[in-house]
Amino acid sequence: MTDTPLFAPPGSHEAVEEGLALTPHFGADGLIAAVVVDDESGDVVMVAWMNAEALSRTIATREGWYWSRSRQELWHKGATSGHVQTVTDIRIDCDQDAVLLRVRTAGTGANCHTGRKGCFYRRVTAGADATGPVLEFTGDEPLFDPKAVYKG
Amino acid sequence: MTDTPLFAPPGSHEAVEEGLALTPHFGADGLIAAVVVDDESGDVVMVAWMNAEALSRTIATREGWYWSRSRQELWHKGATSGHVQTVTDIRIDCDQDAVLLRVRTAGTGANCHTGRKGCFYRRVTAGADATGPVLEFTGDEPLFDPKAVYKG
Repeated sequence: MTDTPLFAPPGSHEAVEEGLALTPHFGADGLIAAVVVDDESGDVVMVAWMNAEALSRTIATREGWYWSRSRQELWHKGATSGHVQTVTDIRIDCDQDAVLLRVRTAGTGANCHTGRKGCFYRRVTAGADATGPVLEFTGDEPLFDPKAVYKG
Repeated sequence: MTDTPLFAPPGSHEAVEEGLALTPHFGADGLIAAVVVDDESGDVVMVAWMNAEALSRTIATREGWYWSRSRQELWHKGATSGHVQTVTDIRIDCDQDAVLLRVRTAGTGANCHTGRKGCFYRRVTAGADATGPVLEFTGDEPLFDPKAVYKG
């Protein structure tokens, strides 16, 4: 870790949206949203968060690094489970406050801590009139047993 | 608007991840991340934010409603530009703090306020050794002129 900022601060509105400088806009919590797409299927498999260090490491190593909001620590995806993500493409959005990764995931290919390929395994449906919206499973089955992989 | 909560509060860890009740976990700012995929191409076209009211309206009307963080107001996508999003699928992730929409977008089909189909029109590349990462355009051209559509 270093005290030197890892990225230059955002410039003008025009520079942020139409320029060639990477100047990510981290939120008040120091984080930026990261959307992760499976490189083979093109499906969105997870949404995670990055601080500057995680984004910098992801760019430098071409592996998925995130900031775990629940554990409040830098998180090398796959360090525990073996599901390391090799990053094949990194994009940033118009106002540079979200990144989009394409990844190839090692091991079973699971990206979700529940053991599934991706985190979006439930659909929101209208439900019966009186009850409001409910969820239905889309049929994505776990590829590994999280209880056997994550200890404690 | 009503004082009755629009969604039930999250239950147990197990209920949130493996249950059939929609209990979105809004952040301290009252917002949840919404990833938007173009229904035809499958490409991620934008990341936006929803408060409970925006999510509720999106589910009820099957059109994209968001919370504009810059304007601090509820935002019916396309109200100004005509690019209304018809929602064909809504998913929620494992811990119910992100939603994934598939949409068909009216008019030119643009989803980005810069006039482009999507917001992720720049790739992060390693850059020359000494300079660090830079951006390159992926070739997505604007489909409309934002200056002519958005006034003031």
